[in-house]
Amino acid sequence: MNVLVIHGPNLNLLGTREPEIYGSTTLEQVDAAISSAAEALGMTVDIHQTAREGEIIELLHGGIGSVAGALLNPAAYSHTSRAIAEAVRAVTFPVIEIHLSNIHAREPWRRRSVTAEAAVGIVSGFGSNSYVLGLRALKGLLDG
Amino acid sequence: MNVLVIHGPNLNLLGTREPEIYGSTTLEQVDAAISSAAEALGMTVDIHQTAREGEIIELLHGGIGSVAGALLNPAAYSHTSRAIAEAVRAVTFPVIEIHLSNIHAREPWRRRSVTAEAAVGIVSGFGSNSYVLGLRALKGLLDG
Amino acid sequence: MNVLVIHGPNLNLLGTREPEIYGSTTLEQVDAAISSAAEALGMTVDIHQTAREGEIIELLHGGIGSVAGALLNPAAYSHTSRAIAEAVRAVTFPVIEIHLSNIHAREPWRRRSVTAEAAVGIVSGFGSNSYVLGLRALKGLLDG
Amino acid sequence: MNVLVIHGPNLNLLGTREPEIYGSTTLEQVDAAISSAAEALGMTVDIHQTAREGEIIELLHGGIGSVAGALLNPAAYSHTSRAIAEAVRAVTFPVIEIHLSNIHAREPWRRRSVTAEAAVGIVSGFGSNSYVLGLRALKGLLDG
Amino acid sequence: MNVLVIHGPNLNLLGTREPEIYGSTTLEQVDAAISSAAEALGMTVDIHQTAREGEIIELLHGGIGSVAGALLNPAAYSHTSRAIAEAVRAVTFPVIEIHLSNIHAREPWRRRSVTAEAAVGIVSGFGSNSYVLGLRALKGLLDG
Amino acid sequence: MNVLVIHGPNLNLLGTREPEIYGSTTLEQVDAAISSAAEALGMTVDIHQTAREGEIIELLHGGIGSVAGALLNPAAYSHTSRAIAEAVRAVTFPVIEIHLSNIHAREPWRRRSVTAEAAVGIVSGFGSNSYVLGLRALKGLLDG
Amino acid sequence: MNVLVIHGPNLNLLGTREPEIYGSTTLEQVDAAISSAAEALGMTVDIHQTAREGEIIELLHGGIGSVAGALLNPAAYSHTSRAIAEAVRAVTFPVIEIHLSNIHAREPWRRRSVTAEAAVGIVSGFGSNSYVLGLRALKGLLDG
Amino acid sequence: MNVLVIHGPNLNLLGTREPEIYGSTTLEQVDAAISSAAEALGMTVDIHQTAREGEIIELLHGGIGSVAGALLNPAAYSHTSRAIAEAVRAVTFPVIEIHLSNIHAREPWRRRSVTAEAAVGIVSGFGSNSYVLGLRALKGLLDG
Amino acid sequence: MNVLVIHGPNLNLLGTREPEIYGSTTLEQVDAAISSAAEALGMTVDIHQTAREGEIIELLHGGIGSVAGALLNPAAYSHTSRAIAEAVRAVTFPVIEIHLSNIHAREPWRRRSVTAEAAVGIVSGFGSNSYVLGLRALKGLLDG
Amino acid sequence: MNVLVIHGPNLNLLGTREPEIYGSTTLEQVDAAISSAAEALGMTVDIHQTAREGEIIELLHGGIGSVAGALLNPAAYSHTSRAIAEAVRAVTFPVIEIHLSNIHAREPWRRRSVTAEAAVGIVSGFGSNSYVLGLRALKGLLDG
Amino acid sequence: MNVLVIHGPNLNLLGTREPEIYGSTTLEQVDAAISSAAEALGMTVDIHQTAREGEIIELLHGGIGSVAGALLNPAAYSHTSRAIAEAVRAVTFPVIEIHLSNIHAREPWRRRSVTAEAAVGIVSGFGSNSYVLGLRALKGLLDG
Amino acid sequence: MNVLVIHGPNLNLLGTREPEIYGSTTLEQVDAAISSAAEALGMTVDIHQTAREGEIIELLHGGIGSVAGALLNPAAYSHTSRAIAEAVRAVTFPVIEIHLSNIHAREPWRRRSVTAEAAVGIVSGFGSNSYVLGLRALKGLLDG
Repeated sequence: MNVLVIHGPNLNLLGTREPEIYGSTTLEQVDAAISSAAEALGMTVDIHQTAREGEIIELLHGGIGSVAGALLNPAAYSHTSRAIAEAVRAVTFPVIEIHLSNIHAREPWRRRSVTAEAAVGIVSGFGSNSYVLGLRALKGLLDG
Repeated sequence: MNVLVIHGPNLNLLGTREPEIYGSTTLEQVDAAISSAAEALGMTVDIHQTAREGEIIELLHGGIGSVAGALLNPAAYSHTSRAIAEAVRAVTFPVIEIHLSNIHAREPWRRRSVTAEAAVGIVSGFGSNSYVLGLRALKGLLDG
Repeated sequence: MNVLVIHGPNLNLLGTREPEIYGSTTLEQVDAAISSAAEALGMTVDIHQTAREGEIIELLHGGIGSVAGALLNPAAYSHTSRAIAEAVRAVTFPVIEIHLSNIHAREPWRRRSVTAEAAVGIVSGFGSNSYVLGLRALKGLLDG
Repeated sequence: MNVLVIHGPNLNLLGTREPEIYGSTTLEQVDAAISSAAEALGMTVDIHQTAREGEIIELLHGGIGSVAGALLNPAAYSHTSRAIAEAVRAVTFPVIEIHLSNIHAREPWRRRSVTAEAAVGIVSGFGSNSYVLGLRALKGLLDG
Repeated sequence: MNVLVIHGPNLNLLGTREPEIYGSTTLEQVDAAISSAAEALGMTVDIHQTAREGEIIELLHGGIGSVAGALLNPAAYSHTSRAIAEAVRAVTFPVIEIHLSNIHAREPWRRRSVTAEAAVGIVSGFGSNSYVLGLRALKGLLDG
Repeated sequence: MNVLVIHGPNLNLLGTREPEIYGSTTLEQVDAAISSAAEALGMTVDIHQTAREGEIIELLHGGIGSVAGALLNPAAYSHTSRAIAEAVRAVTFPVIEIHLSNIHAREPWRRRSVTAEAAVGIVSGFGSNSYVLGLRALKGLLDG
Repeated sequence: MNVLVIHGPNLNLLGTREPEIYGSTTLEQVDAAISSAAEALGMTVDIHQTAREGEIIELLHGGIGSVAGALLNPAAYSHTSRAIAEAVRAVTFPVIEIHLSNIHAREPWRRRSVTAEAAVGIVSGFGSNSYVLGLRALKGLLDG
Repeated sequence: MNVLVIHGPNLNLLGTREPEIYGSTTLEQVDAAISSAAEALGMTVDIHQTAREGEIIELLHGGIGSVAGALLNPAAYSHTSRAIAEAVRAVTFPVIEIHLSNIHAREPWRRRSVTAEAAVGIVSGFGSNSYVLGLRALKGLLDG
Repeated sequence: MNVLVIHGPNLNLLGTREPEIYGSTTLEQVDAAISSAAEALGMTVDIHQTAREGEIIELLHGGIGSVAGALLNPAAYSHTSRAIAEAVRAVTFPVIEIHLSNIHAREPWRRRSVTAEAAVGIVSGFGSNSYVLGLRALKGLLDG
Repeated sequence: MNVLVIHGPNLNLLGTREPEIYGSTTLEQVDAAISSAAEALGMTVDIHQTAREGEIIELLHGGIGSVAGALLNPAAYSHTSRAIAEAVRAVTFPVIEIHLSNIHAREPWRRRSVTAEAAVGIVSGFGSNSYVLGLRALKGLLDG
Repeated sequence: MNVLVIHGPNLNLLGTREPEIYGSTTLEQVDAAISSAAEALGMTVDIHQTAREGEIIELLHGGIGSVAGALLNPAAYSHTSRAIAEAVRAVTFPVIEIHLSNIHAREPWRRRSVTAEAAVGIVSGFGSNSYVLGLRALKGLLDG
Repeated sequence: MNVLVIHGPNLNLLGTREPEIYGSTTLEQVDAAISSAAEALGMTVDIHQTAREGEIIELLHGGIGSVAGALLNPAAYSHTSRAIAEAVRAVTFPVIEIHLSNIHAREPWRRRSVTAEAAVGIVSGFGSNSYVLGLRALKGLLDG
C-alpha cells in the first residue's frame, strides 16, 4: 500500500517561515513523522516537495498505477489552481487534501479551496498531525 | 480525558436520509464507532444529537470545566450560525469541526463554514471515520 | 390521508401583526379553514405553530411514517434556514411550501427561499387560501 | 367570469421537451384539464400560447375590460422580462404566475422571477395541476 | 428634417397605467404635443408604439436613409435589451433616449439603461415634455 | 413602566468570554447596573438571557400587553435572524437594540444587523453602559 | 423666475480639459448660452462654479426662498456625493441634473448618479445645450 | 442533410454596421459562402434572418423533424435570452452557436452567452468563416 | 470636561428638511437640549455645523489638546468619507457617532457607516435625544 | 505554413480521464487527426503537451519567427492564467483557442476564459474535431 | 523646474497619528527631506497640505502653466474622490501619486485608488522616502 | 549589498511586445540601466527572467542568506499568484514590487496585486526607471 505525499510551494521553508502561524517544526521533521506513521500503518510513502504547479500535476499523473492513494497539501495553489484540481479529478486513486493551519480561520481568500472540490476529503488545522490523520483516513478508505 | 461530541440537525436520520450522500450507516453505529475509538485512545465521550441551535450552544457552554475538548458536527448550521461560532470562540477547550461528506465538493453554499472559522481544525469527507480521526486529532492536541 | 401543517415563527400573531400586509384573519380562522377544507377533501390535518427552528425540524422528522405529506410555512426561516431545508430533503413524504403573501413582491431578501429549494412546490400570495390550495396540491400529488 | 390563460415560450413542445423535467403531458392535455376545471368552477377560459414577448404583453393589454383575471406562465421570460412585468403592473385585473416545475429547486437563475414581482401570487411545481390550482386561487380572489 | 419617434412597451396604456407614476396624460395627447412641437421646430415626425422588441429594431433599421434622427423611449426594454442597443449603434443617425419618469429616482434596476449606452444622450423625468425637449436636443445636434 | 430586557446567545459567559473584546464585567453585574438605573428612572425591568432564537421571539411576543418597551441584545443573531426581526416588527411596543461592542468597528459581517432594521434605534459600543443608555432612550420615547 | 445654476468640479477648465470628450467650448461660452436662453425664456440666472462639495450644498441651501429652481451639474460628485443628494432632497425647489456628456455611454462608474436619485430629472449628453434644455425643462415644470 | 441557419438581430446590416468590428462583408455574401460550403459538403441550407426573439424560437421549433442540425448566431440575444436557450434545449437536433467576432475579446457583458449553455459547441471570431466552420462541425457531429 | 459637537451637512435645515423623517425640531432646539444636558452633567460643549468635509476634519484636529471627547453626526458623510474616518482615528480623544434616525432602518446605503468604524460607539435613532445619550455615553467613558 | 499546437495540463490523460466528459479518444489519436488534417491543408504541425504554465508561455514565445499561427488548448489554465493570456498578446502570430468540451455548458467557472480574451477566436465543444476546425480557421485567416 | 507637492487630509498630524503605521517623522521633517532632495535634483518645490478635497482640485488647477509636474498624496481621498481624479486628468502636467504606507498591504478598501487611475505612476510604501523617489521619478519623466 | 532582481513572464519580449504600452526599450537595456544604477549606489545585482511561477518562488527562496533585498516584477502573476505572495512573506529580506506601467490605470483586473500585499512597497508606472527607483527605495530601507 504505497502512498504519494506532495507538499506544495513554500513548505520547504517550514520551521522558519512565519512560525507564529506554521510552527517551528521543519519539513524534515514532518516527513519523519509521516514515514513513522506510515510504517506503523503498514504503508509506504513517496514524499515530494515542489513549488511548481505543473510538477504537482505530473506527480499526480505519475502515481497512476503505482500508488494506492495520495496526500496533497497544495498550499497556496489550493485557492487558485484549477489545473491541479483537474489532475485530482483525472487520477483514479483517492486524494486527500491536507493543511497545516485551519484554512477557514484565516483570511477570506484561504477559505475557498478549489482543489478540495476534487478531493475525497480534507484534514486542516492540526499542524504536522494533519498528515498523519490523512494517512489514517486514507487507510480507512482503502480498507473499507 | 472527557470529550463532548455534538451531532447537529438531521443527523438522527443518518442511514435513511439521502443515503447516496450520507451512506447507510446509522447514527447508533457512528456512536458505537466513536465510543470504541475513544476507549482505545483512553478517552471517554459524552455524545448528544439535537436539531436545536440554542441547545448546541448550551451543550458547548456546559462543557466548560468538565470536558477536555469537543467534536462538533454542526451539519446545516455550519453555514449559517454565527451564534454557534461565537459559542465555540467563547469556550476555552478546543473544538474540532467534523463533517461526514466533503463540504468543498458539494453545492457552493456548503463550502463556507462560519463555525469552522472558530474551530481549531476541520475533518471533512470520511463518513463516520471523520469522527474517529477527530478524536485522534483532539488527542494529539491535548497530548502535544 | 393525514397531513402535517406547520406554521413558522410569528404566525401566532396573525390578525394583529402588520395587518396591512398579512390581513386581519387570525391563525385560529386560518386553521379552521384548513380543517374544513381537509375534511371536504377526505384528509385529516395535524396543525402546529412554533417559533423554534429546531422544533420545525423535529415536527418534520416526527411525520415520518405517520403523515402522507406536509404543508410548511417556514415564515422568516424560509430565507435563512439551511437546517429546515435539509430536514425537508431528509423526510420521504412530499412537503409543499406555503406563504400568505407573495414573497416575490416584497423586499429583495424575501425573494429567495432556501427551504423551497427542497420542497415539491410553492403556493404564495393568496392569504389563508394558500393553505387550502396547498392541501389540494398535496391531494393531487398523492392521488396522481 | 372569463379568465385569460397565457402559456409562454417553448410550452407548445410540452410532452416532448425535456420530459424528465416537464413530464409527458402535452399542452393539449394541459389545456383540456384547464378547460374542464374552469367549467367545474363556473369560469370560461381564453387560452393562448406564444413564444413572443411582445405578444404576451399585447394579450395582457387585450384582457382589459374583457377578463376577470389571468393565469400567466411566462416560462423563460419570467427571469428576464421587465416588459412583461410592467404589463402585469399596468393591467387592472389580477394576474397569477404559474410554473410547471418548482423554480426554486432548479438552477440559480430560475429562482428569481421578475414577472412574479408584479403578480398577485405564484403557484409553482405541480405540473399541469399548477394551472388548476391557479384557477381556484383566482376564483378565491374574485369571490372574496 | 424627418424624425422617427418610437414608444416602447406598455406606453399605449399611458394615462390609465400607474397614473401616480406616469400621470394621466394619454399617449394620444403626448403624440399631439410632439407633433405640435415638431411643427414649431420645422420638423416632421413619424410616430410608432409597439410592445415588440424586434419591431423596435426593425423601425430603427427602417429609419436608415429616411430620417434625420430618432427619439426612442424603450420603456422596460431600456434595462434589458442588448439587441435594441446594438440597433442604435448600427444605425447612422443620432438616437436620443427619452423617459417620462426619472429612471435614477426609482427602483435600482431602472437606474441602468443598456440602450442609453448607445444613444447620443438622454432626457428623463419630465413627463411628455421629455419628448419635446428631445426634439429640441435633436434639432440642436442636427443644426450644430 | 415595565421594560423587557433580553440578552441573546453567549452573553451568559460575559466576563470570561473573550474579555479583550467584551471586558471582565459579568452578566450579573450588568443586570445589577440595569436594575439600579431602572429604579432611578422609575422603571421596572424583566431580564432574560437565552441562547435560543425561538425563545427570544416568544419573549418578545410575551411582552405584548405587559411591557412598555424592550431592550434587545440579539448578539450573534443580530446578523442572521430574520425571524427575530419579524418578531420586533410584529410587537407593538418599541424595541431598542443594544450591543456591548461597536458592531461597526469589528469584522465586516458584524456591521450589518438585520434585527436593527426593525428596531426603533441602536446603542452600540459602550459596554454595560449601552443598556443604561438604552433604558434612558426608551424612557425618552415613552415620555415624549 | 430666478434660476440657480451650479457647475461642479473641473468645469472651470472646460474647453481645455479633455476636449475630445468635453469639446472646445469654454465655460464662459456655456454661461453666455445659458444667460441668453434664460433671457429668451423670461428667466434670470445666478451662475456658480466650484470644486468644493460643501459649497455646492451651501449654494443649494442659499437658494431656498430666493430661486424658483436649479440646474445642477455635479460633475464627478454625481457618482459619490450622498451629501449633495441629501441637499437636493432638503431644498423645496426643483433641481434638474445636467451633464455635458452622456453618463451612460462612458466608464461603468459614471452610469450611476447618486445625486440624480434626488433630482426631478436629468438631461445628459448634449454639451452646453444640456443646460439650455434644462432651463426649458424647468420652465415647463414651473409653468405646468 | 438539411441545415437550418439563423442570423439574429442586426445581422441584416452586416457590411455597413460598425465595419471596424464586423467587417465589410454583407449578409448576402455571408449567405453565399454558407450555401457554397454546404453544397461542397453535400448539405442543403435553409437560411433566415430576424430581429425577433420569438421568431428565432419558432424557427428552431419548426426545424423539428425537418432539419439535421442548426447553426445559430443569436447576436445580442446570446447574452440575455433564456427563452432562446430553452428552445435550443427543447429541440432534439444539434445546434451550434456562431459568432462573427470573438465574444471573449470584447466588453465583459459579451463574454457570457446564455444560449451557448444549451448549444453543442461554439465557433467564435472568424467572421463569415465562423459559419463555414460551423457547417463542418455539424457535419462531423452528424457523420460521427 | 469640554466636549466638541459637530453637526454635518444639511443638519442646519433640521425642522424643515424632510420632517416626516427628521421631525420638526430645529437645530437651534437640538443645540439648546445639548447645552442644557451638558450643563446638568457638568460638561461644556463647543457646537459646530458645517457642510464641508474638510472642515469636519479640521474641527476634529482642532480638538486635540482642548476637548475631552466629541459627538460627531457626520450625516451623509458617514457613508462615504474615509477622510473623516481617518481623522477620527488620528485624534486621541474618544469620538461617538450620533444619528437622528436609525440608519439600519432606511435605504441599504445608509446601513454602512465608514466613519463609525473609527468611532468608540454609535447612538442612532432617537432624534435629538441621540445627542443627549451620546453626552452621557461620553461621560461614562471619561469617568470610567 | 507551420502551425504550433499546444495541449495544456491533463490532456495527456485523454481517453482515460473523465471519459463521460472528454470521450475515449486518446491524445495520440487526436494528434494523428491533427497531423492528417494539416497535411490535407498543406500545413505542418509542431505539437506539444505540457502541464506547466511557464512552458506554455515559452512555447508560444518560441514560435515567434518560426510559426504562422498556433492552436492553443490551455485546458484549466484558460480560466486562471493571465500570464498565458499576456503571452498570446505578446506574440505576433494568430492564436486560436481550442476546447474539447463546450466551456459554456459546464460549471460557471469554466464559462470565463481569460486566455480567450487575447486569442483571435475560439472553437469549443467538438471533441478532437475542435482542433481540425481550428486548423481550418487558421488557414482561412492566413489565406484571407 | 518647479514641482507642486500636495499632502492630503490628516497628513498634518504625521508623527503623532497612528505612529505604528505612519512612523514618528513629522510632516515638517518630510517637507525638509523633499526640499533638500529637490534642491539636489535642481528642482524647486511648492508644498501644500489640506484636508479639503476641493482645495486639492484648486491647487492642481493652479499648477497649470506654472509647474512642471506634481507629487500628490491624496491620503484617504485616493479611495473615494472621483473629483480629484478628474482634476488629475484635466491638468496637462504629469502627476505622480505618493503613499507613505503600502496601500496594497492594508485593509481591502485601501487597495483601490481611484486617483491613481489618472496618475502617471505610483510610489507607495517607503515612508517619507516615497516623496523623494517621486521627485526622482518626475525628473526622469521630464528629462526623458 | 547584493540585490536579487526578478523579471516575470513575458518580460523577455520587452521592446517588441505591445510597444504602445511597454515602450521600445529591450530587457537587455533595462538590465543595463539596473546594473549601472546599482553600481552607482554601491550595490550588486543578480538578475533573472522567467515565465515559470515556481521558479520565481525558488529564486526568492534562494535569496535567503545571500541577498539584502529583492526587486520583483511578477508581471501577470501579480494578479493571480498567491503562491508567489506566500514566498514573499516567507523570505526574511525586503521585496519591492516593480511595474513598468501604472497598474491602476489599465484594465480593472490589473488594479489588484495579490503579490503586492506581501511586499514592502510598490513602484509602478515609470518604465525601466521603476527598477532604478526600486533600487534606491531598497537602499533607503537597508540604510535607514
